[in-house]
Amino acid sequence: MDINGIKIGGPNFQIIAGPCSVESPQQILDIAKKVSAAGASILRGGAFKPRTSPYDFQGLRSDGIDLLLETKKQTGMPIVTEIMNTNHLPLFENVDIIQVGARNMQNFELLKELGMTRKAVLLKRGLANTMQELLMSAEYIMAGGNPNIILCERGIRTFETYTRNTLDISAVPMLRELSHLPVVVDPSHASGIARMVEPMSLAAAAAGADGLMIEVHNDPVNALCDGAQSLTPEQFAVTAAKVRRIREVIKQ
Amino acid sequence: MDINGIKIGGPNFQIIAGPCSVESPQQILDIAKKVSAAGASILRGGAFKPRTSPYDFQGLRSDGIDLLLETKKQTGMPIVTEIMNTNHLPLFENVDIIQVGARNMQNFELLKELGMTRKAVLLKRGLANTMQELLMSAEYIMAGGNPNIILCERGIRTFETYTRNTLDISAVPMLRELSHLPVVVDPSHASGIARMVEPMSLAAAAAGADGLMIEVHNDPVNALCDGAQSLTPEQFAVTAAKVRRIREVIKQ
Amino acid sequence: MDINGIKIGGPNFQIIAGPCSVESPQQILDIAKKVSAAGASILRGGAFKPRTSPYDFQGLRSDGIDLLLETKKQTGMPIVTEIMNTNHLPLFENVDIIQVGARNMQNFELLKELGMTRKAVLLKRGLANTMQELLMSAEYIMAGGNPNIILCERGIRTFETYTRNTLDISAVPMLRELSHLPVVVDPSHASGIARMVEPMSLAAAAAGADGLMIEVHNDPVNALCDGAQSLTPEQFAVTAAKVRRIREVIKQ
Amino acid sequence: MDINGIKIGGPNFQIIAGPCSVESPQQILDIAKKVSAAGASILRGGAFKPRTSPYDFQGLRSDGIDLLLETKKQTGMPIVTEIMNTNHLPLFENVDIIQVGARNMQNFELLKELGMTRKAVLLKRGLANTMQELLMSAEYIMAGGNPNIILCERGIRTFETYTRNTLDISAVPMLRELSHLPVVVDPSHASGIARMVEPMSLAAAAAGADGLMIEVHNDPVNALCDGAQSLTPEQFAVTAAKVRRIREVIKQ
Repeated sequence: MDINGIKIGGPNFQIIAGPCSVESPQQILDIAKKVSAAGASILRGGAFKPRTSPYDFQGLRSDGIDLLLETKKQTGMPIVTEIMNTNHLPLFENVDIIQVGARNMQNFELLKELGMTRKAVLLKRGLANTMQELLMSAEYIMAGGNPNIILCERGIRTFETYTRNTLDISAVPMLRELSHLPVVVDPSHASGIARMVEPMSLAAAAAGADGLMIEVHNDPVNALCDGAQSLTPEQFAVTAAKVRRIREVIKQ
Repeated sequence: MDINGIKIGGPNFQIIAGPCSVESPQQILDIAKKVSAAGASILRGGAFKPRTSPYDFQGLRSDGIDLLLETKKQTGMPIVTEIMNTNHLPLFENVDIIQVGARNMQNFELLKELGMTRKAVLLKRGLANTMQELLMSAEYIMAGGNPNIILCERGIRTFETYTRNTLDISAVPMLRELSHLPVVVDPSHASGIARMVEPMSLAAAAAGADGLMIEVHNDPVNALCDGAQSLTPEQFAVTAAKVRRIREVIKQ
Repeated sequence: MDINGIKIGGPNFQIIAGPCSVESPQQILDIAKKVSAAGASILRGGAFKPRTSPYDFQGLRSDGIDLLLETKKQTGMPIVTEIMNTNHLPLFENVDIIQVGARNMQNFELLKELGMTRKAVLLKRGLANTMQELLMSAEYIMAGGNPNIILCERGIRTFETYTRNTLDISAVPMLRELSHLPVVVDPSHASGIARMVEPMSLAAAAAGADGLMIEVHNDPVNALCDGAQSLTPEQFAVTAAKVRRIREVIKQ
Repeated sequence: MDINGIKIGGPNFQIIAGPCSVESPQQILDIAKKVSAAGASILRGGAFKPRTSPYDFQGLRSDGIDLLLETKKQTGMPIVTEIMNTNHLPLFENVDIIQVGARNMQNFELLKELGMTRKAVLLKRGLANTMQELLMSAEYIMAGGNPNIILCERGIRTFETYTRNTLDISAVPMLRELSHLPVVVDPSHASGIARMVEPMSLAAAAAGADGLMIEVHNDPVNALCDGAQSLTPEQFAVTAAKVRRIREVIKQ
């Protein structure tokens, strides 16, 4: 798969990084430059945010998309952001990768609609969905003729409470065996704890993931959402360097 | 809550019954008459069907809604059917209760849209959602000004494999304590096994549920979906009679 | 099965009641008399207590057994109490029903040892054990020649946090279908919340359980363990009366 | 911790390897020599086997221990094997590390007894136990005065069915943060699938584990238990070499 010159899958390994939510022009541009310098090749940023409570920050919505596109223009980084409603598709025309979040993994109407496009889709595994169901949801997109799908493991729901979710790293080799689709891992949402992101990133790379998606914020303490799981750009640079060394071992 | 003269919540107890999917005019009318005679007050029937695989029967879609409305006209029974896409809302204008399925419990864009209507909404608990998250999803609807919500427990996902899901009957008294909203139980989807429907219906009634939603099919073996969990109209009549006797004990 | 004249299984329904832990002669005798008057036929009381932390109250151990036997002598009630170690078997010689707790459901050495006796065994389902595993553990006891087994559903571990465990009431009809063994339900440990005990007791009876095991304490606030889930004798009497009315409906 | 000159924890990394069950003198000696040559420093082998069904192979029991001790004499490798009954403790006098299996993690009587010894104990996390409960079980051993505990993550029970259990790799950094005890990972039992063992071993090493415990059998197809998850000695040698390269990256 080729996203604006960035190759995903096969021998390639890509790191997607950026804030949970786009908050301001300065914030997103600043983070984009820093994660790019540290080795991230794709920029993430939430514009439409699925929040458990209606009273939590819901994202900048279409303004957030505009800021991402502006940042893309300035940095050249392809962007990935989440869609929550088929009616918003026109806003995603210049988005490089459309994310389907964990809570919408079985929003079949949305999947069918994305199957009609030829957009790259990052499909996150639902919190309580089996790998089989994830692959069937990918099938909904492919049945429409769109083969550009990236699978994403982001943690499943278990009885354990020390981590927000339980990252199922065995999904990486299993999904790669069951499907030709690239598999990336989101260690940030899996644990919900910033200091767990590095060890889980290294583990995912060691298990053979095709990439990572990591939340990075320039000011985690004051982030409008999920600050507790965000790395600073400096922490991200350290982690990305270690991940690259793991990748070199794996490639041998 | 008053649905076309059918009262839900408080001292009332209602049974919603009908097939998983609307299949033909004769099928839905025949079932409607039989479940009505046996004590069901509301008719269910799937028109838009969320199926794990894109290659499974997807429902009759708008034709299914038409058949439900025609059956409503002939029997006087209010109808409940599932919505999967905000764009379909116009089709639901004469539907009495709009169902939000388990897989869409956190489809927040859909919830917001339903909050803008004054339609009764049957909100099913997601397979891996906590009661707190169910109540927050109800809050998304209420935040828009729509208070007409019925909560539905339909089984959660656990490690047990003898039943498809694990019906969490403790959710009935717990949700009734945490909220003023009526709570109904769907014993058909919970186990996926027809012979479990009666004991689980009796258990739900004994635990204080405000109603039941039971799948009934005139020919379960040849049903286009979920035949294995459907009661025949005759089995339904027996179960409904036993449920009424349990209700009498509970009311005392 | 006949426990000192108390018949379990078939058309019979028995309520086991008593405190989480035996604390003093007065406490256990007082509770025994009250639960007996309210309809309980078997007395429960913990002597050896499996506690998550080594620093929690571990039970009166052999002194607790002595107090139960003394209470049995004074009231005529058969007693059930938990074993945690095969070496303690001699202490259980006059105990009527030996309980194997959820944490020891797959302590196969203990099961084999109990299979060598002809004692009645109350075998609790483990927090994360399937029904199939429960039946295989019963098989360990039966393989030794001891057929006197009572199965007990007491809640399984799920992601839900409002209740301590999730009572799997569907296990009642399922286990009764898969096995000839009687099935009782423990609603106290399942939720960990006293006010959930009554609705869950009624639900279990409605689903066809052969009995209930309910924690009752004369002074829940000061109980040495699990006070939050204990009914007072007065609450127990109300619940037991309602359970009997549900049983009458079920028997018809 | 020092096991006959083999250091566990701190900067050290040890691989425990060997068959699920000791089957014959030739089998265990042959495997021991091969895994030792490939870099394993400790030999595992089951003598007492906890099996779900009483009709499955239960291990060679005390004869199995004898064969392990004989192999230890010939190879110099320290040995680890599982205990299931406090009465068997005398048989474990010359065993270097006593394993407490997942099903006995909350067999508190066994833990107390092991706390009275000064033996090294490999404590496996239960299939449905939280990290907090694992640490409390370790506390049962430490409360008796025995600080020689190795924690072992071996997969937890979830709804996913493609793998037997879900290996919770996030437990590695979390347990190392919460406790000073070394943490090893058992990738064989976690997935139950031989071809998953290598990627999960690499992931565990990358996440910072202090060691691995891997099942190796000279003839997996004919193994008396768990052949499907066993590596051949040749596969083990390849995996062990890759693990060492990951370790070198991690140590930097």
